[in-house]
Amino acid sequence: MTATVDELIARHRPTLDAALGAIRSREYYTRFPENAKAYPAEAKEQAQAAFEARRGTTWSLGEAGADGTTVGGEISPYGFELGIGYEHVDPDVLLPAMQAALPAWRDTGGEARAAVCIEILDRLNARSFEVALTAMHTTGQAYMMAFQAAGPNAQDRGLEAVAYGYSALNAHPDKAVWEKPSGRGEPTRLAKKWIAAPRGVALVVGCNTFPTWNGYPGLFASLVTGNAVLVKPHPFAVAPLALTVEIAREVLAEAGFPPDLVALAPEAKDEGLAKTLALRPEVRIIDFTGSNEFGDWLEANARQAQVYTEKAGINTIIVDSFREDEYKAALGHLAFSLSLYTAQMCTTPQNILVPRTGIRVGDELKSPDDFAADLAGAVEKLLGDDARATAILGAVVNPFILERLDRAANVGKTVLATRTVTHPEFPDATVRTPLIAAVDATDADVYTHEWFGPISFIISTDSTQDSINVYRDSVKAHGALTAAVYSTSEDVIAAAEEATWDAGANLSINLVGPIYVNQSAAFSDYHGTGANPAANATYADHAFVAGRFRFIQSRRPA
Amino acid sequence: MTATVDELIARHRPTLDAALGAIRSREYYTRFPENAKAYPAEAKEQAQAAFEARRGTTWSLGEAGADGTTVGGEISPYGFELGIGYEHVDPDVLLPAMQAALPAWRDTGGEARAAVCIEILDRLNARSFEVALTAMHTTGQAYMMAFQAAGPNAQDRGLEAVAYGYSALNAHPDKAVWEKPSGRGEPTRLAKKWIAAPRGVALVVGCNTFPTWNGYPGLFASLVTGNAVLVKPHPFAVAPLALTVEIAREVLAEAGFPPDLVALAPEAKDEGLAKTLALRPEVRIIDFTGSNEFGDWLEANARQAQVYTEKAGINTIIVDSFREDEYKAALGHLAFSLSLYTAQMCTTPQNILVPRTGIRVGDELKSPDDFAADLAGAVEKLLGDDARATAILGAVVNPFILERLDRAANVGKTVLATRTVTHPEFPDATVRTPLIAAVDATDADVYTHEWFGPISFIISTDSTQDSINVYRDSVKAHGALTAAVYSTSEDVIAAAEEATWDAGANLSINLVGPIYVNQSAAFSDYHGTGANPAANATYADHAFVAGRFRFIQSRRPA
Repeated sequence: MTATVDELIARHRPTLDAALGAIRSREYYTRFPENAKAYPAEAKEQAQAAFEARRGTTWSLGEAGADGTTVGGEISPYGFELGIGYEHVDPDVLLPAMQAALPAWRDTGGEARAAVCIEILDRLNARSFEVALTAMHTTGQAYMMAFQAAGPNAQDRGLEAVAYGYSALNAHPDKAVWEKPSGRGEPTRLAKKWIAAPRGVALVVGCNTFPTWNGYPGLFASLVTGNAVLVKPHPFAVAPLALTVEIAREVLAEAGFPPDLVALAPEAKDEGLAKTLALRPEVRIIDFTGSNEFGDWLEANARQAQVYTEKAGINTIIVDSFREDEYKAALGHLAFSLSLYTAQMCTTPQNILVPRTGIRVGDELKSPDDFAADLAGAVEKLLGDDARATAILGAVVNPFILERLDRAANVGKTVLATRTVTHPEFPDATVRTPLIAAVDATDADVYTHEWFGPISFIISTDSTQDSINVYRDSVKAHGALTAAVYSTSEDVIAAAEEATWDAGANLSINLVGPIYVNQSAAFSDYHGTGANPAANATYADHAFVAGRFRFIQSRRPA
Repeated sequence: MTATVDELIARHRPTLDAALGAIRSREYYTRFPENAKAYPAEAKEQAQAAFEARRGTTWSLGEAGADGTTVGGEISPYGFELGIGYEHVDPDVLLPAMQAALPAWRDTGGEARAAVCIEILDRLNARSFEVALTAMHTTGQAYMMAFQAAGPNAQDRGLEAVAYGYSALNAHPDKAVWEKPSGRGEPTRLAKKWIAAPRGVALVVGCNTFPTWNGYPGLFASLVTGNAVLVKPHPFAVAPLALTVEIAREVLAEAGFPPDLVALAPEAKDEGLAKTLALRPEVRIIDFTGSNEFGDWLEANARQAQVYTEKAGINTIIVDSFREDEYKAALGHLAFSLSLYTAQMCTTPQNILVPRTGIRVGDELKSPDDFAADLAGAVEKLLGDDARATAILGAVVNPFILERLDRAANVGKTVLATRTVTHPEFPDATVRTPLIAAVDATDADVYTHEWFGPISFIISTDSTQDSINVYRDSVKAHGALTAAVYSTSEDVIAAAEEATWDAGANLSINLVGPIYVNQSAAFSDYHGTGANPAANATYADHAFVAGRFRFIQSRRPA
């Protein structure tokens, strides 16, 4: 498998060029097929065997600084202990080793680093079924979603970050002759040289629900721009990132680079390792996905680092009017958005704004109650069969979701109660259907904070214009990853867009097909905007990558 | 003079394209000639008359929020009061007016904004002699330096920022059709739209010594990316930025935009206005040049904003060896570097590292004492004639410089004492020549902090390798804007470069000609790196502009 850097460049330059083209057009592009049938028939079974073989063992990555203790304790949301141990590392040993690895990685240049990154992604892709199992049994995603989101979709996001990083590194040549004319006599000539110097060690703080999809943009953006990357996984979702780091280290070593350029730092129970690492002087970049509380703490305290955060927001749908022939499809579509992965996505809609004067469906006027009943019916229909329901819902990721569902049962008027679903394959899995409650726009104390999980509110407003105002104010004050509007009026759509430009969300308009408001596609859709409190960055643009390295210059007479 | 936006685009697109080409090649480019002879013969006299006419008056810019009080009190370092008053503004009125101006500026698009910015720069250029007088009599720069640095050179830095901003805005088209193939049946088509949304109001906190050169990069980077810009000048250097803001407002109004997109906020004595403005929620970007103390405060406290700082550093020269035929030129060159604008530049060298075993000049070995005496002699020769000396030195910008010179007289061994020079034209100007002291590398408490002003140290080290280590450690710990090495050995140069890549300074090698280590050229040399404590950004690269706006998206079925 060993390949020289030159071989890797030759192998992956076409992919890099295709990805560079995609970020310039932001048209459809993917390198990693999300259709499981595109993968070898035997891969799925092999992955199952590999996953089972991991259980009951310690997963050693051979990192500098392994301190002889083992941590772990992941429990599958499908109801069993993973039984995988991970080697705990001593930052005082590991971080200097990572720093020592930087010059070789810097000096090999951006094209070589991009090729190494793409090789890592390709090998991750070949292991996508194994990635899927690690993701399923840490996040609770259903198998097929875990395959797509943690596998090919995450890999595409990683490749997108590689392309942006490479593009930023190549803003200008690494050498130039500067020739300043002189009125009389010879011009002044200086030979200039630039090097893209990394900031240092980059810390990726992983999340419980999308450890790879939300982790790869920062990981690959930092790696391609010359940094070393230390991955601190969420203690409930270590395995997907351990597999990622293992493959990255393999590829680095084979290509002749120090494997400690990418390392995993799993934590002991209640160790609070992310805080410790985030304040280390060696750590100059942090990518974090998770709670507002810790994201805000990082932004305030990890001042030696560039901090990129994706935190919580409140996603809103403005419902104004539907074409009669699209209403049913829209309800089914919305029901799916509210159900997918038990709404444990930072992109799931929570607040659905409906004018109390009613919405038009063709020639008919529907009250908020009518609409709520229709939507509840669509969810019930979608999730009526337990086997089908579990394939959409997956499992409840942690007990906080259940607590929140209990509290939500007493809020407003319950339009649709949550229901316990029995998983046909994993009887110990906790599976719950969404709860929908109706409230009034005046009940701002209810709906102006995030209820992470399968809880949404149908909120009666004074008018669609009032809905747009509520939406705008909410995004500005509380943030949002996504937003949507349903209207047959171009004026309403334009007003919703204007509010969106102002407040800084990403808006989906009249979606009824197979792309959902919760989903963003690498190379085309931005995830987060960096313009509202839910995130200070987006996946991915030049702002996401340009601060991860610095051009350093020398000049001399030519 | 009124021009439509379309006319401005047609007029300035070629300049924009040339500037875009320059930032991609980083070869020599300038739009604004620094040779005063390139300007109309009568311009200089007209400027003198305009400057005189300002004195004794209140400079009204017609801004929203003028609160009826007048502030001012600038005193020329050449020994007279400017007597110019400025209208004080109420941020509670001005900031909402600036915010209200944003949508029109955003919606006109990047090409129109770039054209407006270039028109502003062109008009500033036509007023370069007036700019020069305002700069001379606030910063103390000599007339010709004030002309070049505050006029055309600053204007080129502004254009460079426009080019980077425009380039970042145009990373991809503002519309695309995304077409995802489907195994069976029709592909899914979404029409996507992106808008580059500004962050809000950008605050430029001006400095005393280079109000335009250090102010324009942030000002124009923010403006071209769609923000409104509020300029808070240093209370000792208001006039150059008042003139800048006046011209910007003129151009904006003529092109049909709200002039409050650019405004000046001069402060009352001891008002501490920068702190007040920096914490306003409307202020989402801050560009600051000045002290470490306030820069660090901004980074720690102005958390609602992107903060770009250029603070203090310690600039170092590693002296190893010279070609015999270049030694004299090098001494004269270094003498000029140490004297230009009384070393009141953030780029002036302070620490000159010389191995105590001596340096080679051709076949000769010179001790640190020999080298110190040679350098002192070169400075004395350069500044021997008072008229010539004042043309290089300008005037002392503020009394802190004199205090520091007094303290430095008692440090180490004085190699060259400072001397008072009488200005032939302005007898009340305070003009002083540089002080050079010799110390040992063990006297780290002396030379590891900045002595802003005409104070430098010749520091005896154990060896050139020791010098390189001292240099590397100093840049990492205390920052630097510039660095230089003089050596005939390619090994030494390579080692100095390697230390530079690691520590993150900008290095000049064996400069002896008309380009000095203190100088950086727009479109080619970076000023600061963002990689050491002296600055968290550089003029200018994509990292300097990419975070000043956000792409916001909508998508709908196509």
